Amino acid sequence: MDFTNVVGLFAGICVTLSVIPQILKVWKTKKVKEISLLTFSVLTFGIAIWVVYGFLKEDLPIIITNSISLFLNLIMVYFIIYYEKEK
Amino acid sequence: MDFTNVVGLFAGICVTLSVIPQILKVWKTKKVKEISLLTFSVLTFGIAIWVVYGFLKEDLPIIITNSISLFLNLIMVYFIIYYEKEK
Repeated sequence: MDFTNVVGLFAGICVTLSVIPQILKVWKTKKVKEISLLTFSVLTFGIAIWVVYGFLKEDLPIIITNSISLFLNLIMVYFIIYYEKEK
Repeated sequence: MDFTNVVGLFAGICVTLSVIPQILKVWKTKKVKEISLLTFSVLTFGIAIWVVYGFLKEDLPIIITNSISLFLNLIMVYFIIYYEKEK
């Protein structure tokens, strides 16, 4: 793996894992009023399309990183809808 | 531009623009307590590294889409810090 690939992998890991603190924050506070459902819905939809793109290109790193992102952001979308109804 | 590229472009546009509703929401409500600064900081850092990756690969679509993302997410990070101090 050359330097460029390491940079790309590092960027992908940062972006993929970045949503975790937000998930934990919502999970702890159960508050989602200030969070945009539209933002996380469009983001999740876009990431799902990235997974499709990964399959079309048969590019395993794109499939793997975006599948993890998709999973994490689906949790976020679920939390927003669930806690929005709860309040 | 073939079908695969159109899919990739569409995914990139969705992910890039997704943060806009969240920016508008914060701008209108001025409330950021429920939003994770860590999430948007790590995300913005990761996107900045994607821009570096784009330059290393000399890949213009990666540079352009991630530069727009970087700009939008920097606004978001600024808003979180600014309105966190305001309250």
